[in-house]
Amino acid sequence: MAHRPGDVERRIVETRLRVRYAETDQMGVVYHANYLVWMEVGRVEYCRAAGIRYREMERQDKVLLTVAEAGCRYHAPALYDDEVVVRTWVAQAHPRMVRFEYEMVAAEDGRRLVTGFTKHVFCTPALKPTKLPSKYFQEFGITGNG
Amino acid sequence: MAHRPGDVERRIVETRLRVRYAETDQMGVVYHANYLVWMEVGRVEYCRAAGIRYREMERQDKVLLTVAEAGCRYHAPALYDDEVVVRTWVAQAHPRMVRFEYEMVAAEDGRRLVTGFTKHVFCTPALKPTKLPSKYFQEFGITGNG
Amino acid sequence: MAHRPGDVERRIVETRLRVRYAETDQMGVVYHANYLVWMEVGRVEYCRAAGIRYREMERQDKVLLTVAEAGCRYHAPALYDDEVVVRTWVAQAHPRMVRFEYEMVAAEDGRRLVTGFTKHVFCTPALKPTKLPSKYFQEFGITGNG
Amino acid sequence: MAHRPGDVERRIVETRLRVRYAETDQMGVVYHANYLVWMEVGRVEYCRAAGIRYREMERQDKVLLTVAEAGCRYHAPALYDDEVVVRTWVAQAHPRMVRFEYEMVAAEDGRRLVTGFTKHVFCTPALKPTKLPSKYFQEFGITGNG
Repeated sequence: MAHRPGDVERRIVETRLRVRYAETDQMGVVYHANYLVWMEVGRVEYCRAAGIRYREMERQDKVLLTVAEAGCRYHAPALYDDEVVVRTWVAQAHPRMVRFEYEMVAAEDGRRLVTGFTKHVFCTPALKPTKLPSKYFQEFGITGNG
Repeated sequence: MAHRPGDVERRIVETRLRVRYAETDQMGVVYHANYLVWMEVGRVEYCRAAGIRYREMERQDKVLLTVAEAGCRYHAPALYDDEVVVRTWVAQAHPRMVRFEYEMVAAEDGRRLVTGFTKHVFCTPALKPTKLPSKYFQEFGITGNG
Repeated sequence: MAHRPGDVERRIVETRLRVRYAETDQMGVVYHANYLVWMEVGRVEYCRAAGIRYREMERQDKVLLTVAEAGCRYHAPALYDDEVVVRTWVAQAHPRMVRFEYEMVAAEDGRRLVTGFTKHVFCTPALKPTKLPSKYFQEFGITGNG
Repeated sequence: MAHRPGDVERRIVETRLRVRYAETDQMGVVYHANYLVWMEVGRVEYCRAAGIRYREMERQDKVLLTVAEAGCRYHAPALYDDEVVVRTWVAQAHPRMVRFEYEMVAAEDGRRLVTGFTKHVFCTPALKPTKLPSKYFQEFGITGNG
């Protein structure tokens, strides 16, 4: 993939979770929408590792990370009680948007479960687009002046 | 059951829903927590039938129906794509609380799936207990002066 | 979009659902993963309108519709108690895969909420790829000989 | 509470989880049905601590732990990103049923969130009641001869 403006260095953050019974369906595997929830878990842990507590960003800075787009490729199903490793990185970031990418693998045998992305727009609590406060630029890998 | 103060006339409101794949688990039946969600569906339709749009009660009157207690008995499992009838009634109501009861049956064969209840406290948006505005008393079957 | 082999005539099936409280999040809007669940609702109703009861296809023909890929664009948020119209159509179909596309709008004001797609692979109960039985070809708009 | 036959010694198992955004609702707190899911998480970790991998019990011994009854009291709401401690113990057990009880508290300030129980019946994969294999008696605290 060519390097484009807004592309950032990949810092990959790993987080782990265990598949809940509630997350399975009658096919005997994890219901596909739940991977989007796990992406959220990965994203929040990415922020925490970068020194941002997303909860405080919402509460104190009144900046919300709304989802504008999401995509998922399902490679192999996760099973009940599997431990899943969620790898998260920022693929692109501007003061108005950020794109996270994800890879999920089974902890036990390393098989690749899902790859995907979410694209976010920074918004006010009234859900109007806004700019990310510059104090957060570094954490999201934004290097320009926005 | 003895008649107690606060007991109300039973108006039973029926609503129907179809079981989603997402709501099943690997046992091949509906995951048990989802029945609480269906109780919410029944409750909202009960309110609508009584002339209350719960959304407006939250928005305009700033009264929220928080859940203080819930209970469920599972008689038979609901299956994927089953049509489920949710019967909802108010079992008890005061200006500060209301208790809904529920019975869910399969539309196809009438088999009883779940019976249960939820007990609610009226709260402010800051989640402090409050009194239900008297204009809603009749809809919840509150006859006294609170 | 150019016409490609495997493209099918668009029959659009509409289904309606009402947003549940359970489906909202603390942003005050529907949590983004739930739109994938609504796509499933649309897909099942598409099948029903085409004369296929997906439940029976799983049970009797032992053919499962696994999800290989999914994508979503979020245009405007759905709100609690909104009535949502889910429009579903088959965009592409082969004996081994089918691609559904979706558009969701708010029933009240017609505002576009989400557009998206899911790509599916027909599988055995052991989740191995298989061919769709030819008796279903017409319903999925498959015209060739596979 | 009086000691009854079938009562067991309380071994309390603690597990921790972090509240997901997906688990909140527009009240700004955790949606009440999710505590039942967390009870499941607690139950599975209870089993793991007792030397049972519930997944293997289902797969190898074909014994399923179906839910026959559940109850919840909501004391204080859990908030997004809170760390929650789930305490789980077996309150009663027979070869045909087991009753788990739970207490959930916020890790940060120890405030009590929810107390509750679930009552389970051991079943075959066809969901017919069965007896727990005796090799599991000790783990569930069953001392009699069933």
